[in-house]
Amino acid sequence: VKRALLLVDHGSRRPEANARLEELAATLREAAPDRFVALAHLELAAPDIAAGVDACARAGAEEIVVLPCFLAPGRHAGEDLPREVRSAARRHPGLRVRIAASLGEQPGLARLLLELARESEADRA
Amino acid sequence: VKRALLLVDHGSRRPEANARLEELAATLREAAPDRFVALAHLELAAPDIAAGVDACARAGAEEIVVLPCFLAPGRHAGEDLPREVRSAARRHPGLRVRIAASLGEQPGLARLLLELARESEADRA
Repeated sequence: VKRALLLVDHGSRRPEANARLEELAATLREAAPDRFVALAHLELAAPDIAAGVDACARAGAEEIVVLPCFLAPGRHAGEDLPREVRSAARRHPGLRVRIAASLGEQPGLARLLLELARESEADRA
Repeated sequence: VKRALLLVDHGSRRPEANARLEELAATLREAAPDRFVALAHLELAAPDIAAGVDACARAGAEEIVVLPCFLAPGRHAGEDLPREVRSAARRHPGLRVRIAASLGEQPGLARLLLELARESEADRA
C-alpha cells in the first residue's frame, strides 16, 4: 500500500502563515520517508483539499491519512474539513481516505506540552 | 523547587473554546502531578496572564514554565505573550519565569502528527 499524509490547516492570507505548513510538511517527510506528504488549506489559500487529495492520488497513493492541524474543535475541523475531504475522495473511488484525530485532541497534546516544558527546564540546567 | 506550568492560549468569546484549555490543564495535572498547573488567556477571557502568574505564586511556585498554545508564529505568540509574561513576573521578584517553545514549534509537532496518523491507521487494522 502506498500511503500518503495530507496536512490540512485553515489557510491564511499571510504567506508566512501558509509557509509554516510547508515547513511542517518538510519535517514530516524527513520523519516518515515511506509516506508521500502533501498539504492543503481549508480556506483562503491554494492548494485546497481537493487539490491536495489529487496530488496524493497522482503520486500513486492508495491510502491517505488526513491530519487536521487545528487546535480548537469547531465548525472548521468538525464539519467543513470532513465535508471537503469526502467530496474530494468521491472523485477517486479506489482511494481509501481517513481523517486522523485533530492536533488539538488530548492526551497527545498534553504529552507534547510536557516535553516542551521539560526541554525549557533543561535549557536552564 | 515548587514548579508550575502556565498554559496560555489566545482566549475566545466562545465559552466552549475556553473550556478546551481547562480540559487540557486537567489532563496535564494528571500527567504531571508534581506540578501546579494553571491557565490563562492572552485576550478576550479571564483569567489573563497576570492572574495566571498570581495563581502560581499564591500556590507557592518558585518557578513557572509558560506553555504557549499557539500553532502559528506571529505577534500574539512572539510579542504580546512575552510582554504580558514579563510584566506579570515583575510583580513577583523571587519567582523564576521562563517561556517554553510554542506548541507550533517543530519537530515535536511533526512527531505528534505522525503518532496521530499511526493511531488512525491502527484503528482500521
